[in-house]
Amino acid sequence: MITSTSNQKVKELIRLKEKSRIREEEKLFLAEGPRMAEEIPMEWIDCLYVSESYEKKCGEQTAAYKKAGVRTETLSDEVFARVSDTKTPQGVLAAVHMPEYSFADILGVKKAAAHTHVQRAFMQDPFEGHFAARDGAAGRARLPLVLVLDNLQDPGNMGTVFRSAEAAGASGILMSKDCVDVYNPKVIRSTMGAIFRLPFYRAEDLPGAVMELKAGGLRVYAAHLEGRRTYDGEDYRRGCAFLIGNEGNGLRQEVAECADCRIRIPMEGCTESLNAAVAASILLFEAARQRRGK
Amino acid sequence: MITSTSNQKVKELIRLKEKSRIREEEKLFLAEGPRMAEEIPMEWIDCLYVSESYEKKCGEQTAAYKKAGVRTETLSDEVFARVSDTKTPQGVLAAVHMPEYSFADILGVKKAAAHTHVQRAFMQDPFEGHFAARDGAAGRARLPLVLVLDNLQDPGNMGTVFRSAEAAGASGILMSKDCVDVYNPKVIRSTMGAIFRLPFYRAEDLPGAVMELKAGGLRVYAAHLEGRRTYDGEDYRRGCAFLIGNEGNGLRQEVAECADCRIRIPMEGCTESLNAAVAASILLFEAARQRRGK
Repeated sequence: MITSTSNQKVKELIRLKEKSRIREEEKLFLAEGPRMAEEIPMEWIDCLYVSESYEKKCGEQTAAYKKAGVRTETLSDEVFARVSDTKTPQGVLAAVHMPEYSFADILGVKKAAAHTHVQRAFMQDPFEGHFAARDGAAGRARLPLVLVLDNLQDPGNMGTVFRSAEAAGASGILMSKDCVDVYNPKVIRSTMGAIFRLPFYRAEDLPGAVMELKAGGLRVYAAHLEGRRTYDGEDYRRGCAFLIGNEGNGLRQEVAECADCRIRIPMEGCTESLNAAVAASILLFEAARQRRGK
Repeated sequence: MITSTSNQKVKELIRLKEKSRIREEEKLFLAEGPRMAEEIPMEWIDCLYVSESYEKKCGEQTAAYKKAGVRTETLSDEVFARVSDTKTPQGVLAAVHMPEYSFADILGVKKAAAHTHVQRAFMQDPFEGHFAARDGAAGRARLPLVLVLDNLQDPGNMGTVFRSAEAAGASGILMSKDCVDVYNPKVIRSTMGAIFRLPFYRAEDLPGAVMELKAGGLRVYAAHLEGRRTYDGEDYRRGCAFLIGNEGNGLRQEVAECADCRIRIPMEGCTESLNAAVAASILLFEAARQRRGK
Protein backbone atom coordinates (compact mmCIF):
# COMPACT_ATOMS: atom_id res chain seq x y z
CA MET A 1 0.00 0.00 0.00
CA ILE A 2 1.19 3.50 -0.85
CA THR A 3 0.91 5.77 2.20
CA SER A 4 2.97 8.80 1.18
CA THR A 5 2.07 11.60 -1.18
CA SER A 6 5.76 11.95 -2.02
CA ASN A 7 5.67 8.50 -3.63
CA GLN A 8 6.71 8.75 -7.28
CA LYS A 9 3.53 7.11 -8.61
CA VAL A 10 1.35 9.43 -6.56
CA LYS A 11 3.18 12.47 -7.88
CA GLU A 12 2.64 11.19 -11.41
CA LEU A 13 -1.11 10.68 -10.78
CA ILE A 14 -1.43 14.25 -9.52
CA ARG A 15 0.36 15.55 -12.61
CA LEU A 16 -1.91 13.46 -14.83
CA LYS A 17 -4.93 14.93 -13.07
CA GLU A 18 -3.79 18.52 -13.35
CA LYS A 19 -1.78 18.85 -16.54
CA SER A 20 -3.02 18.33 -20.06
CA ARG A 21 0.58 18.37 -21.32
CA ILE A 22 1.61 15.48 -19.05
CA ARG A 23 -1.42 13.44 -20.17
CA GLU A 24 -0.42 14.02 -23.79
CA GLU A 25 3.19 13.04 -23.13
CA GLU A 26 2.31 9.89 -21.23
CA LYS A 27 -0.68 9.05 -23.42
CA LEU A 28 -2.54 8.34 -20.18
CA PHE A 29 -5.59 9.88 -18.50
CA LEU A 30 -7.56 9.30 -15.30
CA ALA A 31 -11.09 7.97 -14.88
CA GLU A 32 -12.61 7.97 -11.43
CA GLY A 33 -15.39 6.18 -9.54
CA PRO A 34 -16.62 2.59 -9.48
CA ARG A 35 -19.33 3.15 -12.10
CA MET A 36 -16.90 4.83 -14.47
CA ALA A 37 -14.36 2.04 -13.91
CA GLU A 38 -16.91 -0.50 -15.11
CA GLU A 39 -17.19 1.35 -18.41
CA ILE A 40 -13.45 1.16 -19.22
CA PRO A 41 -12.45 -1.61 -21.61
CA MET A 42 -10.18 -3.81 -19.42
CA GLU A 43 -7.34 -3.71 -21.95
CA TRP A 44 -7.21 0.09 -21.82
CA ILE A 45 -6.39 0.16 -18.10
CA ASP A 46 -2.77 0.85 -17.25
CA CYS A 47 -3.32 0.54 -13.50
CA LEU A 48 -6.32 0.55 -11.19
CA TYR A 49 -5.87 2.45 -7.93
CA VAL A 50 -8.17 1.78 -4.98
CA SER A 51 -8.34 3.36 -1.54
CA GLU A 52 -7.72 1.32 1.59
CA SER A 53 -11.40 1.71 2.63
CA TYR A 54 -12.64 0.61 -0.78
CA GLU A 55 -10.33 -2.42 -0.71
CA LYS A 56 -11.71 -3.43 2.70
CA LYS A 57 -15.34 -2.98 1.62
CA CYS A 58 -15.21 -4.21 -1.97
CA GLY A 59 -12.08 -6.38 -2.12
CA GLU A 60 -13.83 -8.89 -4.39
CA GLN A 61 -14.14 -6.16 -7.05
CA THR A 62 -10.42 -5.49 -7.01
CA ALA A 63 -9.77 -9.23 -7.05
CA ALA A 64 -11.88 -9.58 -10.21
CA TYR A 65 -9.78 -6.93 -11.95
CA LYS A 66 -6.56 -8.63 -10.83
CA LYS A 67 -7.83 -11.95 -12.11
CA ALA A 68 -8.53 -10.34 -15.49
CA GLY A 69 -4.87 -9.30 -15.63
CA VAL A 70 -5.33 -5.65 -14.58
CA ARG A 71 -2.54 -4.17 -12.50
CA THR A 72 -3.89 -2.79 -9.20
CA GLU A 73 -2.43 -0.68 -6.43
CA THR A 74 -3.84 0.28 -3.03
CA LEU A 75 -3.49 3.82 -1.66
CA SER A 76 -4.13 4.99 1.89
CA ASP A 77 -7.37 7.01 2.13
CA GLU A 78 -5.38 10.19 2.69
CA VAL A 79 -3.25 9.65 -0.40
CA PHE A 80 -6.29 8.67 -2.42
CA ALA A 81 -8.04 11.92 -1.47
CA ARG A 82 -5.03 13.82 -2.79
CA VAL A 83 -5.05 12.17 -6.22
CA SER A 84 -8.85 12.28 -6.51
CA ASP A 85 -10.54 15.05 -8.47
CA THR A 86 -13.73 14.95 -6.38
CA LYS A 87 -14.63 16.29 -2.96
CA THR A 88 -16.00 12.93 -1.80
CA PRO A 89 -13.76 10.31 -3.41
CA GLN A 90 -15.35 6.94 -3.99
CA GLY A 91 -12.11 5.03 -3.76
CA VAL A 92 -11.56 3.86 -7.35
CA LEU A 93 -9.35 5.55 -9.93
CA ALA A 94 -7.92 4.17 -13.14
CA ALA A 95 -4.98 5.37 -15.20
CA VAL A 96 -6.14 4.66 -18.73
CA HIS A 97 -4.30 4.49 -22.07
CA MET A 98 -5.60 7.01 -24.57
CA PRO A 99 -7.44 5.53 -27.53
CA GLU A 100 -6.23 6.37 -31.02
CA TYR A 101 -8.75 6.91 -33.76
CA SER A 102 -8.25 7.66 -37.42
CA PHE A 103 -10.23 10.35 -39.21
CA ALA A 104 -12.19 7.58 -40.95
CA ASP A 105 -13.32 6.18 -37.58
CA ILE A 106 -15.57 9.18 -36.86
CA LEU A 107 -17.56 8.39 -39.99
CA GLY A 108 -18.60 5.07 -38.47
CA VAL A 109 -18.64 3.46 -41.89
CA LYS A 110 -16.61 0.64 -40.45
CA LYS A 111 -16.84 -0.42 -36.85
CA ALA A 112 -14.69 1.99 -34.85
CA ALA A 113 -11.25 0.70 -34.02
CA ALA A 114 -10.90 1.86 -30.46
CA HIS A 115 -7.32 0.95 -29.77
CA THR A 116 -4.81 2.49 -27.49
CA HIS A 117 -1.34 3.32 -28.70
CA VAL A 118 -0.07 0.28 -26.80
CA GLN A 119 -2.24 -2.03 -28.84
CA ARG A 120 -1.46 -0.15 -32.07
CA ALA A 121 2.23 -0.84 -31.56
CA PHE A 122 1.60 -4.54 -32.10
CA MET A 123 -0.14 -4.01 -35.42
CA GLN A 124 1.69 -3.81 -38.69
CA ASP A 125 -0.84 -1.67 -40.45
CA PRO A 126 -2.82 -0.33 -37.52
CA PHE A 127 -5.64 1.34 -39.43
CA GLU A 128 -6.35 -0.44 -42.67
CA GLY A 129 -5.04 -3.84 -41.70
CA HIS A 130 -7.10 -3.92 -38.57
CA PHE A 131 -10.31 -2.95 -40.28
CA ALA A 132 -9.89 -5.67 -42.85
CA ALA A 133 -9.09 -8.33 -40.30
CA ARG A 134 -11.67 -7.51 -37.69
CA ASP A 135 -14.62 -6.25 -39.62
CA GLY A 136 -14.29 -7.90 -43.01
CA ALA A 137 -17.64 -8.61 -44.55
CA ALA A 138 -19.31 -8.22 -41.18
CA GLY A 139 -18.43 -4.51 -40.95
CA ARG A 140 -21.79 -2.79 -40.87
CA ALA A 141 -22.22 0.31 -42.95
CA ARG A 142 -23.64 3.03 -40.75
CA LEU A 143 -25.02 6.34 -41.91
CA PRO A 144 -22.43 8.91 -40.83
CA LEU A 145 -23.59 11.45 -38.25
CA VAL A 146 -20.68 13.62 -37.18
CA LEU A 147 -20.68 16.36 -34.58
CA VAL A 148 -18.08 19.06 -35.27
CA LEU A 149 -16.99 21.22 -32.32
CA ASP A 150 -15.28 24.54 -32.92
CA ASN A 151 -13.42 25.83 -29.85
CA LEU A 152 -15.81 24.33 -27.27
CA GLN A 153 -14.40 25.38 -23.89
CA ASP A 154 -16.55 24.17 -21.02
CA PRO A 155 -15.56 20.73 -19.68
CA GLY A 156 -19.13 19.94 -18.61
CA ASN A 157 -20.42 20.81 -22.08
CA MET A 158 -17.77 18.66 -23.77
CA GLY A 159 -18.64 15.65 -21.60
CA THR A 160 -22.38 16.15 -22.07
CA VAL A 161 -21.88 16.37 -25.84
CA PHE A 162 -20.15 12.97 -25.82
CA ARG A 163 -22.95 11.47 -23.72
CA SER A 164 -25.69 12.86 -25.98
CA ALA A 165 -23.85 12.02 -29.20
CA GLU A 166 -23.47 8.38 -28.27
CA ALA A 167 -27.13 8.17 -27.22
CA ALA A 168 -28.33 9.78 -30.44
CA GLY A 169 -26.33 7.30 -32.50
CA ALA A 170 -23.69 9.73 -33.78
CA SER A 171 -20.81 8.05 -35.57
CA GLY A 172 -18.15 10.32 -34.09
CA ILE A 173 -16.94 13.74 -33.00
CA LEU A 174 -14.56 16.03 -34.86
CA MET A 175 -13.06 18.91 -32.90
CA SER A 176 -10.73 21.86 -33.39
CA LYS A 177 -7.40 21.57 -31.61
CA ASP A 178 -8.28 24.48 -29.32
CA CYS A 179 -11.28 22.75 -27.76
CA VAL A 180 -11.04 21.90 -24.04
CA ASP A 181 -8.91 18.78 -23.49
CA VAL A 182 -11.25 15.74 -23.65
CA TYR A 183 -9.06 14.01 -21.06
CA ASN A 184 -9.70 16.70 -18.44
CA PRO A 185 -11.14 14.81 -15.40
CA LYS A 186 -14.35 16.87 -15.46
CA VAL A 187 -14.91 16.05 -19.14
CA ILE A 188 -14.32 12.33 -18.50
CA ARG A 189 -16.83 12.39 -15.63
CA SER A 190 -19.50 14.21 -17.66
CA THR A 191 -19.25 11.73 -20.55
CA MET A 192 -20.61 9.04 -18.21
CA GLY A 193 -18.47 6.52 -20.10
CA ALA A 194 -19.21 7.62 -23.67
CA ILE A 195 -15.53 8.65 -23.95
CA PHE A 196 -14.68 4.93 -24.04
CA ARG A 197 -17.02 4.18 -26.92
CA LEU A 198 -17.47 7.15 -29.24
CA PRO A 199 -14.69 7.79 -31.81
CA PHE A 200 -13.33 11.33 -31.87
CA TYR A 201 -10.68 13.17 -33.84
CA ARG A 202 -8.83 16.39 -33.09
CA ALA A 203 -8.08 18.28 -36.31
CA GLU A 204 -5.09 20.57 -36.72
CA ASP A 205 -7.03 22.32 -39.47
CA LEU A 206 -10.77 22.23 -38.75
CA PRO A 207 -12.00 23.91 -41.96
CA GLY A 208 -9.84 21.48 -43.94
CA ALA A 209 -11.28 18.50 -42.05
CA VAL A 210 -14.83 19.73 -42.63
CA MET A 211 -14.09 20.00 -46.34
CA GLU A 212 -12.96 16.36 -46.19
CA LEU A 213 -16.32 15.42 -44.67
CA LYS A 214 -18.03 17.17 -47.57
CA ALA A 215 -15.76 15.47 -50.09
CA GLY A 216 -16.86 12.20 -48.50
CA GLY A 217 -20.47 12.99 -49.33
CA LEU A 218 -21.70 14.36 -46.00
CA ARG A 219 -24.04 17.33 -45.94
CA VAL A 220 -22.73 19.88 -43.44
CA TYR A 221 -25.07 22.02 -41.34
CA ALA A 222 -23.89 24.94 -39.24
CA ALA A 223 -25.93 25.70 -36.12
CA HIS A 224 -26.11 29.45 -36.48
CA LEU A 225 -28.22 32.14 -34.86
CA GLU A 226 -28.54 33.78 -38.25
CA GLY A 227 -29.50 30.58 -40.06
CA ARG A 228 -32.44 31.19 -42.38
CA ARG A 229 -33.67 27.59 -42.27
CA THR A 230 -35.16 25.99 -39.19
CA TYR A 231 -33.41 22.83 -38.06
CA ASP A 232 -36.50 20.66 -38.32
CA GLY A 233 -37.17 21.54 -41.93
CA GLU A 234 -34.08 19.68 -43.20
CA ASP A 235 -33.70 16.00 -44.10
CA TYR A 236 -31.02 14.26 -42.05
CA ARG A 237 -31.66 10.76 -43.42
CA ARG A 238 -28.33 10.79 -45.24
CA GLY A 239 -24.76 11.22 -44.06
CA CYS A 240 -24.53 14.57 -42.32
CA ALA A 241 -22.53 16.70 -39.90
CA PHE A 242 -23.49 19.47 -37.48
CA LEU A 243 -21.12 22.33 -36.67
CA ILE A 244 -21.34 23.68 -33.11
CA GLY A 245 -19.40 26.74 -31.98
CA ASN A 246 -17.85 28.21 -28.88
CA GLU A 247 -20.09 28.96 -25.86
CA GLY A 248 -19.68 32.71 -26.01
CA ASN A 249 -18.81 33.45 -29.61
CA GLY A 250 -20.42 30.72 -31.70
CA LEU A 251 -18.73 29.40 -34.84
CA ARG A 252 -15.68 31.12 -36.27
CA GLN A 253 -16.45 32.57 -39.66
CA GLU A 254 -13.96 30.36 -41.52
CA VAL A 255 -15.61 27.28 -40.01
CA ALA A 256 -19.21 28.42 -40.57
CA GLU A 257 -18.33 29.16 -44.19
CA CYS A 258 -17.54 25.49 -44.81
CA ALA A 259 -21.17 24.52 -44.22
CA ASP A 260 -23.62 23.64 -46.99
CA CYS A 261 -26.42 25.23 -45.02
CA ARG A 262 -26.96 27.34 -41.88
CA ILE A 263 -29.76 26.18 -39.62
CA ARG A 264 -31.28 27.69 -36.54
CA ILE A 265 -33.33 26.37 -33.65
CA PRO A 266 -36.33 28.72 -33.34
CA MET A 267 -36.45 30.36 -29.92
CA GLU A 268 -39.13 32.21 -28.00
CA GLY A 269 -38.65 34.72 -25.20
CA CYS A 270 -35.56 36.86 -24.87
CA THR A 271 -32.91 34.14 -24.74
CA GLU A 272 -30.14 34.90 -27.20
CA SER A 273 -28.91 31.36 -27.60
CA LEU A 274 -29.01 27.87 -26.16
CA ASN A 275 -26.34 26.12 -24.14
CA ALA A 276 -23.92 24.55 -26.67
CA ALA A 277 -24.43 20.98 -25.42
CA VAL A 278 -28.21 21.47 -25.51
CA ALA A 279 -28.15 22.83 -29.07
CA ALA A 280 -25.96 19.91 -30.20
CA SER A 281 -28.32 17.44 -28.49
CA ILE A 282 -31.45 18.90 -30.07
CA LEU A 283 -29.91 18.64 -33.56
CA LEU A 284 -28.59 15.11 -33.00
CA PHE A 285 -31.90 13.85 -31.63
CA GLU A 286 -33.82 15.44 -34.49
CA ALA A 287 -31.56 13.46 -36.86
CA ALA A 288 -32.15 10.31 -34.77
CA ARG A 289 -35.92 10.94 -34.84
CA GLN A 290 -35.94 11.28 -38.62
CA ARG A 291 -33.74 8.23 -39.05
CA ARG A 292 -36.13 6.13 -36.98
CA GLY A 293 -38.65 6.97 -39.67
CA LYS A 294 -40.88 9.43 -37.83
CA MET B 1 -16.24 53.89 -2.20
CA ILE B 2 -16.09 50.85 0.05
CA THR B 3 -12.50 49.72 0.57
CA SER B 4 -12.78 47.34 3.51
CA THR B 5 -14.04 43.75 3.55
CA SER B 6 -15.17 44.30 7.13
CA ASN B 7 -17.75 46.83 5.90
CA GLN B 8 -21.25 45.73 6.92
CA LYS B 9 -22.62 45.78 3.37
CA VAL B 10 -19.73 43.72 2.09
CA LYS B 11 -20.28 41.15 4.81
CA GLU B 12 -23.94 40.96 3.84
CA LEU B 13 -23.05 40.47 0.15
CA ILE B 14 -20.73 37.59 1.01
CA ARG B 15 -23.47 35.98 3.11
CA LEU B 16 -25.94 36.43 0.24
CA LYS B 17 -23.48 34.76 -2.12
CA GLU B 18 -22.79 31.81 0.13
CA LYS B 19 -25.93 31.08 2.11
CA SER B 20 -29.28 30.02 0.74
CA ARG B 21 -30.89 30.68 4.14
CA ILE B 22 -29.74 34.31 4.19
CA ARG B 23 -31.06 34.86 0.66
CA GLU B 24 -34.41 33.44 1.73
CA GLU B 25 -34.53 35.65 4.85
CA GLU B 26 -33.58 38.82 2.99
CA LYS B 27 -35.55 37.93 -0.15
CA LEU B 28 -32.50 39.05 -2.09
CA PHE B 29 -30.08 37.30 -4.44
CA LEU B 30 -26.99 38.25 -6.45
CA ALA B 31 -26.58 38.50 -10.23
CA GLU B 32 -23.14 39.15 -11.62
CA GLY B 33 -21.58 40.52 -14.81
CA PRO B 34 -22.49 43.39 -17.17
CA ARG B 35 -24.48 41.20 -19.58
CA MET B 36 -26.48 39.67 -16.74
CA ALA B 37 -27.11 43.12 -15.24
CA GLU B 38 -28.72 44.23 -18.50
CA GLU B 39 -31.25 41.40 -18.18
CA ILE B 40 -32.50 42.46 -14.75
CA PRO B 41 -35.71 44.48 -14.74
CA MET B 42 -34.58 47.84 -13.29
CA GLU B 43 -37.26 47.83 -10.60
CA TRP B 44 -36.01 44.50 -9.22
CA ILE B 45 -32.56 45.90 -8.38
CA ASP B 46 -31.98 46.68 -4.73
CA CYS B 47 -28.46 47.99 -5.31
CA LEU B 48 -25.91 47.80 -8.11
CA TYR B 49 -22.30 47.30 -7.03
CA VAL B 50 -19.44 48.16 -9.39
CA SER B 51 -15.69 47.82 -9.00
CA GLU B 52 -13.42 50.84 -9.06
CA SER B 53 -11.90 49.70 -12.39
CA TYR B 54 -15.32 49.22 -13.96
CA GLU B 55 -16.42 52.64 -12.78
CA LYS B 56 -13.35 54.21 -14.37
CA LYS B 57 -13.80 52.36 -17.65
CA CYS B 58 -17.60 52.34 -17.98
CA GLY B 59 -18.76 55.17 -15.73
CA GLU B 60 -21.47 56.16 -18.23
CA GLN B 61 -23.12 52.76 -17.67
CA THR B 62 -23.30 53.32 -13.93
CA ALA B 63 -24.56 56.85 -14.54
CA ALA B 64 -27.40 55.49 -16.69
CA TYR B 65 -28.49 53.20 -13.86
CA LYS B 66 -28.34 56.08 -11.36
CA LYS B 67 -30.41 58.23 -13.67
CA ALA B 68 -33.02 55.49 -13.82
CA GLY B 69 -33.26 55.61 -10.03
CA VAL B 70 -31.12 52.57 -9.27
CA ARG B 71 -29.02 52.77 -6.11
CA THR B 72 -25.34 52.20 -6.91
CA GLU B 73 -22.25 51.64 -4.81
CA THR B 74 -18.56 51.46 -5.79
CA LEU B 75 -16.23 48.85 -4.28
CA SER B 76 -12.45 48.77 -4.47
CA ASP B 77 -11.24 46.03 -6.85
CA GLU B 78 -9.96 44.00 -3.92
CA VAL B 79 -13.30 44.14 -2.10
CA PHE B 80 -15.15 43.40 -5.32
CA ALA B 81 -13.05 40.27 -5.92
CA ARG B 82 -14.08 39.06 -2.46
CA VAL B 83 -17.84 39.43 -3.05
CA SER B 84 -17.63 38.05 -6.60
CA ASP B 85 -18.45 34.41 -7.31
CA THR B 86 -16.13 34.21 -10.34
CA LYS B 87 -12.38 33.85 -10.70
CA THR B 88 -12.14 36.79 -13.09
CA PRO B 89 -14.73 39.33 -11.85
CA GLN B 90 -16.13 41.66 -14.48
CA GLY B 91 -16.85 44.44 -12.02
CA VAL B 92 -20.67 44.49 -11.93
CA LEU B 93 -22.84 42.80 -9.31
CA ALA B 94 -26.47 43.44 -8.45
CA ALA B 95 -28.40 42.60 -5.30
CA VAL B 96 -31.82 41.73 -6.68
CA HIS B 97 -35.24 41.37 -5.03
CA MET B 98 -36.70 37.89 -5.46
CA PRO B 99 -39.73 37.69 -7.72
CA GLU B 100 -42.92 36.17 -6.35
CA TYR B 101 -45.06 34.04 -8.58
CA SER B 102 -48.33 32.33 -7.90
CA PHE B 103 -48.98 28.73 -8.91
CA ALA B 104 -51.25 30.06 -11.69
CA ASP B 105 -48.35 32.06 -13.17
CA ILE B 106 -46.50 28.92 -14.30
CA LEU B 107 -49.47 28.01 -16.48
CA GLY B 108 -48.93 31.16 -18.52
CA VAL B 109 -52.66 31.53 -19.11
CA LYS B 110 -52.35 35.13 -18.07
CA LYS B 111 -49.21 37.13 -18.64
CA ALA B 112 -46.85 36.29 -15.79
CA ALA B 113 -46.83 38.79 -12.97
CA ALA B 114 -43.16 38.97 -12.21
CA HIS B 115 -43.22 41.14 -9.13
CA THR B 116 -40.89 41.29 -6.23
CA HIS B 117 -42.24 41.25 -2.69
CA VAL B 118 -41.48 44.96 -2.49
CA GLN B 119 -43.83 45.71 -5.33
CA ARG B 120 -46.41 43.26 -4.00
CA ALA B 121 -46.59 45.20 -0.75
CA PHE B 122 -48.09 48.15 -2.60
CA MET B 123 -50.88 46.10 -4.10
CA GLN B 124 -54.14 45.47 -2.37
CA ASP B 125 -54.92 42.22 -4.09
CA PRO B 126 -51.52 41.34 -5.43
CA PHE B 127 -52.47 38.36 -7.56
CA GLU B 128 -55.98 38.76 -8.89
CA GLY B 129 -56.14 42.53 -8.83
CA HIS B 130 -52.92 42.88 -10.71
CA PHE B 131 -53.88 40.50 -13.46
CA ALA B 132 -57.16 42.30 -14.03
CA ALA B 133 -55.56 45.73 -14.09
CA ARG B 134 -52.53 44.99 -16.17
CA ASP B 135 -53.63 42.32 -18.55
CA GLY B 136 -57.35 42.88 -18.89
CA ALA B 137 -58.63 41.92 -22.31
CA ALA B 138 -55.12 42.08 -23.66
CA GLY B 139 -53.99 39.08 -21.59
CA ARG B 140 -53.09 36.48 -24.18
CA ALA B 141 -54.14 32.91 -23.54
CA ARG B 142 -51.10 30.73 -24.01
CA LEU B 143 -51.04 26.97 -24.24
CA PRO B 144 -49.53 25.80 -20.94
CA LEU B 145 -46.19 23.98 -21.18
CA VAL B 146 -44.85 23.28 -17.71
CA LEU B 147 -41.57 21.66 -16.80
CA VAL B 148 -41.71 19.82 -13.47
CA LEU B 149 -38.39 19.18 -11.69
CA ASP B 150 -38.15 16.52 -9.00
CA ASN B 151 -35.06 16.94 -6.79
CA LEU B 152 -32.80 18.38 -9.50
CA GLN B 153 -29.46 18.96 -7.77
CA ASP B 154 -26.85 20.32 -10.15
CA PRO B 155 -26.74 24.16 -10.34
CA GLY B 156 -25.56 24.11 -13.96
CA ASN B 157 -28.42 21.81 -14.94
CA MET B 158 -30.98 23.99 -13.15
CA GLY B 159 -29.74 27.12 -14.92
CA THR B 160 -29.60 25.39 -18.30
CA VAL B 161 -33.16 24.13 -17.80
CA PHE B 162 -34.39 27.71 -17.27
CA ARG B 163 -32.53 28.89 -20.38
CA SER B 164 -33.91 26.08 -22.56
CA ALA B 165 -37.42 26.33 -21.13
CA GLU B 166 -37.69 30.01 -21.95
CA ALA B 167 -36.33 29.44 -25.46
CA ALA B 168 -38.76 26.58 -26.10
CA GLY B 169 -41.69 28.74 -25.05
CA ALA B 170 -42.47 26.95 -21.77
CA SER B 171 -45.01 28.75 -19.61
CA GLY B 172 -43.22 27.99 -16.36
CA ILE B 173 -41.31 25.67 -14.07
CA LEU B 174 -42.65 23.73 -11.11
CA MET B 175 -40.10 22.25 -8.73
CA SER B 176 -39.92 20.16 -5.59
CA LYS B 177 -38.72 22.01 -2.51
CA ASP B 178 -35.56 19.86 -2.35
CA CYS B 179 -34.27 21.03 -5.74
CA VAL B 180 -31.05 23.06 -5.73
CA ASP B 181 -31.72 26.70 -4.75
CA VAL B 182 -32.51 28.64 -7.94
CA TYR B 183 -30.86 31.72 -6.39
CA ASN B 184 -27.48 29.97 -6.10
CA PRO B 185 -25.02 32.20 -8.05
CA LYS B 186 -24.05 29.35 -10.39
CA VAL B 187 -27.72 28.73 -11.24
CA ILE B 188 -28.31 32.42 -11.90
CA ARG B 189 -25.28 32.55 -14.20
CA SER B 190 -26.34 29.44 -16.16
CA THR B 191 -29.86 30.80 -16.76
CA MET B 192 -28.30 33.56 -18.91
CA GLY B 193 -31.10 35.84 -17.73
CA ALA B 194 -34.07 33.48 -18.11
CA ILE B 195 -34.44 33.59 -14.29
CA PHE B 196 -35.77 37.15 -14.71
CA ARG B 197 -38.45 36.17 -17.20
CA LEU B 198 -39.68 32.61 -16.69
CA PRO B 199 -42.22 32.07 -13.88
CA PHE B 200 -41.39 29.29 -11.45
CA TYR B 201 -43.00 27.82 -8.36
CA ARG B 202 -41.53 25.74 -5.56
CA ALA B 203 -44.07 23.22 -4.27
CA GLU B 204 -44.13 21.95 -0.70
CA ASP B 205 -45.98 18.89 -1.98
CA LEU B 206 -44.89 18.09 -5.53
CA PRO B 207 -47.26 15.16 -6.22
CA GLY B 208 -50.14 17.34 -4.97
CA ALA B 209 -49.09 20.18 -7.28
CA VAL B 210 -48.84 17.82 -10.26
CA MET B 211 -52.37 16.59 -9.51
CA GLU B 212 -53.45 20.24 -9.63
CA LEU B 213 -51.91 20.56 -13.09
CA LYS B 214 -53.90 17.52 -14.17
CA ALA B 215 -57.06 18.92 -12.62
CA GLY B 216 -56.41 22.05 -14.70
CA GLY B 217 -56.55 19.97 -17.87
CA LEU B 218 -52.85 19.43 -18.54
CA ARG B 219 -51.63 16.08 -19.78
CA VAL B 220 -48.66 15.01 -17.66
CA TYR B 221 -45.75 13.07 -19.18
CA ALA B 222 -43.01 11.48 -17.08
CA ALA B 223 -39.59 11.20 -18.72
CA HIS B 224 -38.76 7.68 -17.68
CA LEU B 225 -36.16 5.15 -18.78
CA GLU B 226 -38.83 2.47 -18.58
CA GLY B 227 -41.39 4.46 -20.56
CA ARG B 228 -43.06 2.27 -23.15
CA ARG B 229 -43.91 5.14 -25.49
CA THR B 230 -41.31 7.11 -27.39
CA TYR B 231 -41.41 10.84 -26.74
CA ASP B 232 -41.94 11.78 -30.38
CA GLY B 233 -45.03 9.62 -30.77
CA GLU B 234 -47.16 11.82 -28.48
CA ASP B 235 -49.17 14.92 -29.32
CA TYR B 236 -48.07 17.96 -27.33
CA ARG B 237 -50.32 20.47 -29.11
CA ARG B 238 -52.41 20.84 -25.95
CA GLY B 239 -51.60 21.96 -22.44
CA CYS B 240 -48.97 19.60 -21.09
CA ALA B 241 -46.29 19.07 -18.49
CA PHE B 242 -43.05 17.09 -18.47
CA LEU B 243 -41.68 15.50 -15.29
CA ILE B 244 -37.87 15.37 -15.02
CA GLY B 245 -36.13 13.60 -12.16
CA ASN B 246 -32.91 13.77 -10.18
CA GLU B 247 -29.57 13.40 -12.02
CA GLY B 248 -28.62 10.11 -10.41
CA ASN B 249 -31.91 8.55 -9.39
CA GLY B 250 -34.52 9.81 -11.82
CA LEU B 251 -38.08 10.49 -10.71
CA ARG B 252 -39.29 9.43 -7.27
CA GLN B 253 -41.95 6.79 -7.57
CA GLU B 254 -44.66 8.93 -5.95
CA VAL B 255 -43.99 11.67 -8.51
CA ALA B 256 -43.76 9.36 -11.56
CA GLU B 257 -47.06 7.80 -10.50
CA CYS B 258 -48.84 11.12 -10.96
CA ALA B 259 -48.15 11.08 -14.71
CA ASP B 260 -50.75 10.22 -17.35
CA CYS B 261 -48.07 8.60 -19.44
CA ARG B 262 -44.42 7.54 -19.24
CA ILE B 263 -42.31 8.47 -22.24
CA ARG B 264 -38.74 7.65 -23.13
CA ILE B 265 -36.16 9.14 -25.47
CA PRO B 266 -34.82 6.23 -27.54
CA MET B 267 -31.08 5.84 -27.07
CA GLU B 268 -28.39 3.98 -28.97
CA GLY B 269 -25.01 2.79 -27.69
CA CYS B 270 -24.42 1.93 -24.06
CA THR B 271 -25.43 5.22 -22.44
CA GLU B 272 -27.84 4.58 -19.60
CA SER B 273 -29.45 7.99 -19.60
CA LEU B 274 -29.13 11.56 -20.81
CA ASN B 275 -28.08 14.59 -18.83
CA ALA B 276 -31.22 15.90 -17.08
CA ALA B 277 -31.07 19.35 -18.71
CA VAL B 278 -30.56 17.75 -22.12
CA ALA B 279 -33.51 15.39 -21.66
CA ALA B 280 -35.73 18.30 -20.57
CA SER B 281 -34.59 20.36 -23.57
CA ILE B 282 -35.27 17.58 -26.08
CA LEU B 283 -38.83 17.15 -24.76
CA LEU B 284 -39.52 20.90 -24.66
CA PHE B 285 -38.22 21.47 -28.17
CA GLU B 286 -40.23 18.52 -29.49
CA ALA B 287 -43.33 20.21 -28.04
CA ALA B 288 -42.23 23.53 -29.60
CA ARG B 289 -41.66 21.81 -32.95
CA GLN B 290 -45.15 20.27 -32.90
CA ARG B 291 -46.74 23.54 -31.82
CA ARG B 292 -45.11 25.35 -34.74
CA GLY B 293 -47.10 22.95 -36.89
CA LYS B 294 -44.40 20.70 -38.21
